[in-house]
Amino acid sequence: MGSVTTPKQDRSRATRQRLLESAVTCLAEHGWTGSTVTVVAEHAGVSRGAAQHHFPTREDLFTAAVEYVAEERSAELRALDGERGTHAAVDALVGLYTGPLFRAALQLWVAASNEPQLRPRVTDLEARIGRETHRMALRLLGADETRPGVRETVQGLLDMARGLGLANLLTDDSARRARVVTQWATILDDVLR
Amino acid sequence: MGSVTTPKQDRSRATRQRLLESAVTCLAEHGWTGSTVTVVAEHAGVSRGAAQHHFPTREDLFTAAVEYVAEERSAELRALDGERGTHAAVDALVGLYTGPLFRAALQLWVAASNEPQLRPRVTDLEARIGRETHRMALRLLGADETRPGVRETVQGLLDMARGLGLANLLTDDSARRARVVTQWATILDDVLR
Repeated sequence: MGSVTTPKQDRSRATRQRLLESAVTCLAEHGWTGSTVTVVAEHAGVSRGAAQHHFPTREDLFTAAVEYVAEERSAELRALDGERGTHAAVDALVGLYTGPLFRAALQLWVAASNEPQLRPRVTDLEARIGRETHRMALRLLGADETRPGVRETVQGLLDMARGLGLANLLTDDSARRARVVTQWATILDDVLR
Repeated sequence: MGSVTTPKQDRSRATRQRLLESAVTCLAEHGWTGSTVTVVAEHAGVSRGAAQHHFPTREDLFTAAVEYVAEERSAELRALDGERGTHAAVDALVGLYTGPLFRAALQLWVAASNEPQLRPRVTDLEARIGRETHRMALRLLGADETRPGVRETVQGLLDMARGLGLANLLTDDSARRARVVTQWATILDDVLR
């Protein structure tokens, strides 16, 4: 059936969406400390009052941003479904960990490790995304998890992808990363077939 | 020859050392935002004035802490030299990324990605530790880097170790990690021999 919305509701929804997108951008660029409601509102081109109407506290804004990042990462993951061949699959999986969504997620993990208010929600969503990513990796690699060792092989690959994302945080690591991906795709091809 | 120090110099050196150790502990536990000079001085049991005598600004303290973390990580690395066999080597290398020094380093990387004052020093020291770790990994694994693919195989292993460290940030991941280490040690044994 679909819900019926008024133009005012549409505008309100668009503002909310813009605030969440800005929260993610600010997190990736300025980190947790630099991402106050004021900074995010300014980046979104929204008044502080309007921002506080949607998100009364910083915790409200970033709890919503954590879920938004999780949904966007799920969507990014589902978009990989067409990749074929081990090299393309490994490259696409590693790509999940080098964009702005991973940078924002990384800021959230580190913030959550020190902020009890963020921690449970971030941990839950991270576990859910971890399971989704694992299932997609099995599908892209055409890997059969009932064979001994396959589960741990794919887990290790995703740990490597996460580590490559971390290596990209301070410097552009793309040339080295491409060589690692090529070599590990070759290794996986042997192990999984 | 050794330098001659007075008891007063010894005390001053011990205070400096305690402040650096506390800076690392505070970083790992409270993150960059929560690690002010006041918090670190209190943790070290040193007056704020004495702390400021050693480190006039927060940047002075954390620039020194970055170097201290780097030296400690190098020492931790050199201590691995006795490990033998692929499983023990992989386990020891992964272990470098799951302790308090890695947690502190992670906080520094994320802080450095948003703090221009920290960034160049953290990036330089990280590159140096990366090279040392790579050399030690080759030695522990008995791997011959002149063979094609070996360099990238070992790099990917260290990326995996870093990703496993990150996975351990919010939850205790040790059971899963042990299974991944066992499986990848088996794979590497085949690839490297």
